Amino acid sequence: MHSAAPCRILVVNSNTTDSVTARIARAAEAALPAGCSVEAVSAPFGLPLIVTRADWSVAGPATVAALAARRGQFDAAVVACFGDPGVDAARELFDVPVVGISEAAFHAACMLGRRFGVVSFTAALKPMFVDCLEHAGLAHRCAGFRMGPAFSGDPGRVAEERRDMILDLCRASIEQDGAEVVILAGGPLAGLAPELAADVPVPLVDGTAAGVRLAAALAGLAPTRRPHRTRALTGYEPGLTGLYAEGPR
Amino acid sequence: MHSAAPCRILVVNSNTTDSVTARIARAAEAALPAGCSVEAVSAPFGLPLIVTRADWSVAGPATVAALAARRGQFDAAVVACFGDPGVDAARELFDVPVVGISEAAFHAACMLGRRFGVVSFTAALKPMFVDCLEHAGLAHRCAGFRMGPAFSGDPGRVAEERRDMILDLCRASIEQDGAEVVILAGGPLAGLAPELAADVPVPLVDGTAAGVRLAAALAGLAPTRRPHRTRALTGYEPGLTGLYAEGPR
Amino acid sequence: MHSAAPCRILVVNSNTTDSVTARIARAAEAALPAGCSVEAVSAPFGLPLIVTRADWSVAGPATVAALAARRGQFDAAVVACFGDPGVDAARELFDVPVVGISEAAFHAACMLGRRFGVVSFTAALKPMFVDCLEHAGLAHRCAGFRMGPAFSGDPGRVAEERRDMILDLCRASIEQDGAEVVILAGGPLAGLAPELAADVPVPLVDGTAAGVRLAAALAGLAPTRRPHRTRALTGYEPGLTGLYAEGPR
Amino acid sequence: MHSAAPCRILVVNSNTTDSVTARIARAAEAALPAGCSVEAVSAPFGLPLIVTRADWSVAGPATVAALAARRGQFDAAVVACFGDPGVDAARELFDVPVVGISEAAFHAACMLGRRFGVVSFTAALKPMFVDCLEHAGLAHRCAGFRMGPAFSGDPGRVAEERRDMILDLCRASIEQDGAEVVILAGGPLAGLAPELAADVPVPLVDGTAAGVRLAAALAGLAPTRRPHRTRALTGYEPGLTGLYAEGPR
Amino acid sequence: MHSAAPCRILVVNSNTTDSVTARIARAAEAALPAGCSVEAVSAPFGLPLIVTRADWSVAGPATVAALAARRGQFDAAVVACFGDPGVDAARELFDVPVVGISEAAFHAACMLGRRFGVVSFTAALKPMFVDCLEHAGLAHRCAGFRMGPAFSGDPGRVAEERRDMILDLCRASIEQDGAEVVILAGGPLAGLAPELAADVPVPLVDGTAAGVRLAAALAGLAPTRRPHRTRALTGYEPGLTGLYAEGPR
Amino acid sequence: MHSAAPCRILVVNSNTTDSVTARIARAAEAALPAGCSVEAVSAPFGLPLIVTRADWSVAGPATVAALAARRGQFDAAVVACFGDPGVDAARELFDVPVVGISEAAFHAACMLGRRFGVVSFTAALKPMFVDCLEHAGLAHRCAGFRMGPAFSGDPGRVAEERRDMILDLCRASIEQDGAEVVILAGGPLAGLAPELAADVPVPLVDGTAAGVRLAAALAGLAPTRRPHRTRALTGYEPGLTGLYAEGPR
Repeated sequence: MHSAAPCRILVVNSNTTDSVTARIARAAEAALPAGCSVEAVSAPFGLPLIVTRADWSVAGPATVAALAARRGQFDAAVVACFGDPGVDAARELFDVPVVGISEAAFHAACMLGRRFGVVSFTAALKPMFVDCLEHAGLAHRCAGFRMGPAFSGDPGRVAEERRDMILDLCRASIEQDGAEVVILAGGPLAGLAPELAADVPVPLVDGTAAGVRLAAALAGLAPTRRPHRTRALTGYEPGLTGLYAEGPR
Repeated sequence: MHSAAPCRILVVNSNTTDSVTARIARAAEAALPAGCSVEAVSAPFGLPLIVTRADWSVAGPATVAALAARRGQFDAAVVACFGDPGVDAARELFDVPVVGISEAAFHAACMLGRRFGVVSFTAALKPMFVDCLEHAGLAHRCAGFRMGPAFSGDPGRVAEERRDMILDLCRASIEQDGAEVVILAGGPLAGLAPELAADVPVPLVDGTAAGVRLAAALAGLAPTRRPHRTRALTGYEPGLTGLYAEGPR
Repeated sequence: MHSAAPCRILVVNSNTTDSVTARIARAAEAALPAGCSVEAVSAPFGLPLIVTRADWSVAGPATVAALAARRGQFDAAVVACFGDPGVDAARELFDVPVVGISEAAFHAACMLGRRFGVVSFTAALKPMFVDCLEHAGLAHRCAGFRMGPAFSGDPGRVAEERRDMILDLCRASIEQDGAEVVILAGGPLAGLAPELAADVPVPLVDGTAAGVRLAAALAGLAPTRRPHRTRALTGYEPGLTGLYAEGPR
Repeated sequence: MHSAAPCRILVVNSNTTDSVTARIARAAEAALPAGCSVEAVSAPFGLPLIVTRADWSVAGPATVAALAARRGQFDAAVVACFGDPGVDAARELFDVPVVGISEAAFHAACMLGRRFGVVSFTAALKPMFVDCLEHAGLAHRCAGFRMGPAFSGDPGRVAEERRDMILDLCRASIEQDGAEVVILAGGPLAGLAPELAADVPVPLVDGTAAGVRLAAALAGLAPTRRPHRTRALTGYEPGLTGLYAEGPR
Repeated sequence: MHSAAPCRILVVNSNTTDSVTARIARAAEAALPAGCSVEAVSAPFGLPLIVTRADWSVAGPATVAALAARRGQFDAAVVACFGDPGVDAARELFDVPVVGISEAAFHAACMLGRRFGVVSFTAALKPMFVDCLEHAGLAHRCAGFRMGPAFSGDPGRVAEERRDMILDLCRASIEQDGAEVVILAGGPLAGLAPELAADVPVPLVDGTAAGVRLAAALAGLAPTRRPHRTRALTGYEPGLTGLYAEGPR
Repeated sequence: MHSAAPCRILVVNSNTTDSVTARIARAAEAALPAGCSVEAVSAPFGLPLIVTRADWSVAGPATVAALAARRGQFDAAVVACFGDPGVDAARELFDVPVVGISEAAFHAACMLGRRFGVVSFTAALKPMFVDCLEHAGLAHRCAGFRMGPAFSGDPGRVAEERRDMILDLCRASIEQDGAEVVILAGGPLAGLAPELAADVPVPLVDGTAAGVRLAAALAGLAPTRRPHRTRALTGYEPGLTGLYAEGPR
């Protein structure tokens, strides 16, 4: 039995809502590999919920700022916001792996079956999800999207309220779209996959769990030491400005 | 002879360097269609130069903040930074057309020839340009990139210093890659196209000029009235926060 | 306020039906930028309506012949036939921009939103539209097609007769396909976009208007001086034969 | 031993040069399957050589006119011009298979190896070849193009004059591009493949031979009876006008 | 009238069910070109029916073993199992053309119309068909799949039992998906195309017939003499082991 | 600090050479996550080295047979042969994750940088690697291949003998192709990445290490319970036949 060095995983919720961060923290804990620890933090500024591309844009620096505030204190990071705001930027700025939960879900799904479906509770998220899938370059592996109608209730309760609908969408994805794996997408569905697994005949992928496990996997794989480029950033809070000026450490 | 309503075009330089803004303003003026006026502004915060994806990330909100500071005062906007930071976000937030100079160059080039080459003075810009091209979905129309070596001099003088090299790269793009149109990419090359045109046997496209002319063209085409969604943004300056809260007007 | 040189735009209706040419002329006039003039002409020979690929084939030389008949008298040209017959050929033969209304619609739509829907009155046009979209290389930006059933009435009246159906198809494109912009495709729908705009929550793009505005935009952008190759064409009328022999002027 | 009905194959040279037609006729005869006969004809009008997209445009109706002149007298047709002018149109207008030599070469090559290279004597043909490959949708199966420099001599002698250069290009295609099959493209190379085969370690595909054999194969496969649509074509010679008016027979 | 050398075609049914082999033999005979003979054989080991990717994997060596058992005795081979198991391997191991019936159907369909539909009797086959289509690189030419529901009866009788359903699926493919050609896919539908042709307004393609005719076409086209690489295979029956050790002859 | 259930990983070398299996075992041990154990086995039959598609075909059942021999005794499996033979089949036949080292390398690389290069010691492997990359659907994320010349020495020593050449290829991949991550591909290079990492300015990915870490990550993520379909396989050894008949357990 092997025993590797302990791995500290920082999970950033790209929005500012602490109750969502708590939910994400629980899902991350449940998926944590042996020998790892996890800390979940909210974005230090930005928006309470990330839905549109405009939201995504301001969430990018906010996400990187959350990472900057902990620099030197984690071995891998997970950006726990479907759409992966700030991930490409953070990957250039840090010497440890940074993984977004949507890309993690897509890549994990590809290794569990040939074509994956994407299921979520509301169609409002689809444009950002599609952008994200195309950015990952995996649109050809996707069997299709199945999303519920507009939702204006409490995101913290939608997983319970729309549980049956989500299950029906999973089945439609499998039977009508030919999905061989199903991704349950969107922060508010974090932790739902294990509850539905017994009723669905293909693997279900939860983004947060995939993100935590793949970030830990990558942490032990390839040390990253990209050269740092000093930049004089203005108009952002000191943590982010310091990161741009001084690099990751 | 037709006489349409006057069209006010706002050009945002996504970095904070006013001398570059001045250069862009001159190129925009030179390309201005009849009946239009133009104003060029720098980003109110951010970085003096945008090169990497990390730079692009912080330039997005800075670009939108520049637009927010003038809201209600322009009929079309141009984001004059190759890479188009903030454009997707701005498009959701404003009711007037917002065009990035790289997408403008790609789309203009497609209507001037079947395959376009992209030429720039330094290879350091290539990763962001490639991302941008793929995001536009036009990679299949691109004949290839031809970029000069690393450059550490004054960006404001590179167009003169590397004029002959740029010309050679244009010829290589045409003769070896089969380009039928060539895009001169990157802010520091703004205004160079007309100077080289006599020595190059295919159309040369300048992003700033393309951006200004296409933004003006779109301004008269399709009125946009997207519903606004009130968002409580924190951690950014008041102009941007106001835009998220109140919408474009 | 800027004042550029006047720009003469020639619009060619690729079929021989003068009443359609008149409708196109009105739509072109309505979209004309400041400082531009427009003339619309019918194809000098060919077919009264262009529907199939066989029609498209004979319409190509007919379209170029219409341009040849006016050579030296226009600063930009628009081919006002969805499918863009003759456009690739004309682009090689003339030193001024030549733009097809379908490519113009696709490129304009891409700068107004992330994914565009295509709506038209009859499914019979779909094969040629799909060919055209793939030729433009923008299939990945298209959210889908929504077309009405077979139509055998008067094309000149279909815009009024099927107005409500078109509106329903636009809504389906937005709500079910996720279109963020909608193209109203096909000559018989020219001029309908402004009438429907108030009832549709995303930008509507009319091909003729897009073609006129983008052709004018390109006219001021990049002078084209491709070398001419003398060719001894036989079996076509003198205008086309002259163009192949002598070049654009 | 099976004995099918005799199959009459009409081969159309899309240009008007009879000496090229004679060369094509010999290559077609050499590749003829058992039980088939072949006739080769020149285009009744158009150009002596097809190189550019402008050439391709006028060659389309000329090619269909050649077919129209023999309607009812052939069981399958081959368009022997790399670029396949008029093929999509002819396919809608006739009830027998019509195959272009470039698409035939691409499809045959795909069944002989995983990735094919394209070799020709002059780079001037590349743009039209690339268009044609993309139109066939097989760009992903292509390992690359290897073309000689500009050529201004007699096309009827280029196969002999540039024989060694073609052989070198074949080897570069195999060794550097990874081609597992090589297509010798362009009418002037018709008949060269058998001469070079002994010196090349992968299959060589000749477009004319592929066209003749695949057209014969398809003739026995699927009877085509598309409904005819009467069209009142003007400005073309009587054969083509008759075909549009009356259909294939 | 031309008379080529006789061509011996070996057709391998990749499964072990002799009644299916007999059906395939009849379809192959019916499609046989002049001057050709055909022999059909079953796989010497493996599975009675090939449905899944796991089935496809074991059918590959079984198919090649069937070819190895006849080496030196055929001029072209057809692998008569939709999914084309063993075809890429056989193509490297033999000096004569080896064609799979699915790739043959795809390529033939592409030369008969712009977009093809795929129709089959049961959705269970779809994942393998989609893999196969993507492997051929022709997904962009496919208008869509139309498959019947799960089937648990006798495959040898499904063509009769589900005849009307297949006809309805063909019509849906044409009218709703825009198919211009329809492929009837799957061994159990071999021979059905000619029976349905009169009721369907576009060409119908049968994989076995396409495979036989295209294999014969290729046999006369390009002699293949790939260098053989001696390999010491273990754990398979002597025919296959001999082929790997000694090459095709 | 979290402590998950122990995870038994079975690594299959798809060829029959035990010395290569030993090398793979060492690389797997070195990359093993905390709480995991690993066992490496050779294929029970097949070939001593897998290079071509013909090799890949017979290696598929051999790989699955190796897994069948241990069924019920592992929680995740890695197929340690670049090209991933048998992986799609195994994924259908087992209820635990099965990961190939090439797909693992591709997916890991995508999460470490935007575009990855592929470096290996001999060009002979390129065709199979390209097939594999396209099958994974990630060709658009690949910056290019850099391979050494033909190699006929001892694969077990090539990593040492060609160390400097590999390093040069890595640098060319980064500097000329724009790779932001480099995959060292092919079994004989297993374990080389950590040795070169200090001399390469981007992350280096080793397939075996990536396979082991991602397989362990997936093992804890999504329980797979696909329904088993009983199949009567003949002509293979009892382990494989039993797996097809009885399912994974």
